[in-house]
Amino acid sequence: KPTFDPKEHQHLRYNPLRDSWVLVSAHRMKRPWKGQVEKPPEDNIPRHDPNNPLCPGSVRANGELNPEYDSTFMFDNDFPALQPDAPDPGSDHHPLFQSKAARGVCKVMCFHPWSDITLPLMQPAEIRKVIDKWADLTVELGATYAWVQIFENKGAMMGCSNPHPHCQVWASNFLPNEASLAERCQRDFLQKHGEPMLVQYARMEAQAQERVVVENEHWLVVVPYWATWPFQTLLLPRRHVLRLPDLTTQERDSLASIMKRLLTKYDNLFEVSFPYSMGWHGAPTGSHLNKNMSHWQLHAHYYPPLLRSANIRKFMVGYEMLANEQRDLTPEQAAEQLRKLSEEHYKVKKA
Amino acid sequence: KPTFDPKEHQHLRYNPLRDSWVLVSAHRMKRPWKGQVEKPPEDNIPRHDPNNPLCPGSVRANGELNPEYDSTFMFDNDFPALQPDAPDPGSDHHPLFQSKAARGVCKVMCFHPWSDITLPLMQPAEIRKVIDKWADLTVELGATYAWVQIFENKGAMMGCSNPHPHCQVWASNFLPNEASLAERCQRDFLQKHGEPMLVQYARMEAQAQERVVVENEHWLVVVPYWATWPFQTLLLPRRHVLRLPDLTTQERDSLASIMKRLLTKYDNLFEVSFPYSMGWHGAPTGSHLNKNMSHWQLHAHYYPPLLRSANIRKFMVGYEMLANEQRDLTPEQAAEQLRKLSEEHYKVKKA
Ligand SMILES: O=P(O)(O)O[C@H]1O[C@H](CO)[C@@H](O)[C@H](O)[C@H]1O
Ligand SMILES: O=P(O)(O)O[C@H]1O[C@H](CO)[C@@H](O)[C@H](O)[C@H]1O
Repeated sequence: KPTFDPKEHQHLRYNPLRDSWVLVSAHRMKRPWKGQVEKPPEDNIPRHDPNNPLCPGSVRANGELNPEYDSTFMFDNDFPALQPDAPDPGSDHHPLFQSKAARGVCKVMCFHPWSDITLPLMQPAEIRKVIDKWADLTVELGATYAWVQIFENKGAMMGCSNPHPHCQVWASNFLPNEASLAERCQRDFLQKHGEPMLVQYARMEAQAQERVVVENEHWLVVVPYWATWPFQTLLLPRRHVLRLPDLTTQERDSLASIMKRLLTKYDNLFEVSFPYSMGWHGAPTGSHLNKNMSHWQLHAHYYPPLLRSANIRKFMVGYEMLANEQRDLTPEQAAEQLRKLSEEHYKVKKA
Repeated sequence: KPTFDPKEHQHLRYNPLRDSWVLVSAHRMKRPWKGQVEKPPEDNIPRHDPNNPLCPGSVRANGELNPEYDSTFMFDNDFPALQPDAPDPGSDHHPLFQSKAARGVCKVMCFHPWSDITLPLMQPAEIRKVIDKWADLTVELGATYAWVQIFENKGAMMGCSNPHPHCQVWASNFLPNEASLAERCQRDFLQKHGEPMLVQYARMEAQAQERVVVENEHWLVVVPYWATWPFQTLLLPRRHVLRLPDLTTQERDSLASIMKRLLTKYDNLFEVSFPYSMGWHGAPTGSHLNKNMSHWQLHAHYYPPLLRSANIRKFMVGYEMLANEQRDLTPEQAAEQLRKLSEEHYKVKKA
């Protein structure tokens, strides 16, 4: 029998943050692709479009006028999935028909006044302002809500309906599924192994280097051992940090720098503005603020859909939806590809 | 405060098969959609294309010649994610870097010799042959493998790379994530409530009628109370049945009939060949065949992505990937829409 080679032999890997497994079948990259190809993203977005509700000076769906903002800009989502005052569906439900109250707020935050810019092309000082706002929002909404989900859907492929650079913040009175999972897994790990899971993980990955994409004094980006999406990454602080507001000035500058480096590599991979969904996970807030949450470590997930080129994506469909998530190249191969890429953005180089 | 109305007030619903919650925010259907629109599926697929590797008489990637089949046709996937003989990654792993062996087989099964037909347009007797093959495969592969996942990816939107009507069967020596979840949830339910979860559920839904889409003597299709995808359905036998091979002749004919009715309604909803991923879940096989698996009830899931029209889909992205799945209309609204639709296929009507 041949000896095990992760690039040739399918195997399962365990995701300790979600208590689930991913099937790695790297030999599958050899199959030809005859399915759907994606439209490349629009490349001539106007810098300012008075009809775009996210632009400075535009009027939004609810009739409000945006200020002539020159940095970040925040407003309430005009079609929020969560509202602060929804009535309670009541209790006393049959076990097969259980519901519960969901309350919260949904905000939108523009990163920059221009529609034709993205994070990797912004200045570190501009990215730093985004990070400060994220931290402020976590304090502000976290005072009341148990979970403050900051996330960015980038690219039409990721359901993003507006090219203007922006993210969303949905805060809720409940721990969402993914938050509960991360809460339980990290709590169990600390109890069992005496160290926060992701603090130990970052140290081991920094040592191994095999899955590291970029790193600096305060941060580390890896394609995690258990990555599901082809070029999924995990952004981790080296120090034990519970939540975004706990980051020092230095750590925030350093975060702006590593985000720019990572996102530049992403764009350079297929020379396209790289689509993804990303988001921050930190210790729960609200009533959890005065509990011991030391099993948590702040981190951000990047989930990009592209697999082979600017227009060939990974589909998480049949087998993945009904049975088990599956990936077509090893995390080590993905990390190596990203690591080798230039940190100069292809658009800057061409300009 | 207004009284709770599920169509107006967001709330969470519990999925007892996956032990997770879905956020229902039906008021969100009001928001305008400015994001990506999907290409309509190809409508002039040739009945026979000698270059299509799934057609009768074609040569496949591995050089094999397909027979001139006139009903169903099965072959081994030429680019299998699971192979029977992959070497073991070994044991003794660090808790953060765990892997395990994955062995199995991947098969493809054509439903019909024609490329321009789909299940709802096939004759009940032809669908019946597909069902018999599914049952046979479950016996054959289930003799060795713990899980036999039968699934169909339909439509380019669902990553399907060939328009010829077909499904796939991936059998594995392990219980995939979704199977483990369903195993644990159904086991706990029987223990706690003394009746198999989905047997009780089918009875209650048949009585309530609110979420029923189609039903007959042996089967029931509902938009489950906890549906995630806009028009997701759950197909359930009324009798307690563990696995596909346990179905009687009558139940198989009746299944062919209800599948045709459901899929016709799906196509009629937006007058398009409705994309989806579907798959069967039955009691585990292999070494589980001689254990007591009476907590299981056979069922099929249909996960269709479309939300508003033939080219506007639901994106399960940022918030859904990082926090919690969310839906934009209530399951009751979806069931009502599907229930009201004709059972005569729009293509037959127009022909
Ligand atoms: O096997 P196919 O049809 O080439 O591939 C399709 O189904 C598979 C199983 O759900 C997925 O892993 C692939 O991403 C998808 O494109
Ligand atoms: O809020 P948007 O950008 O209109 O919508 C997008 O993000 C939401 C949160 O991930 C999703 O629920 C939507 O399906 C998606 O299209």
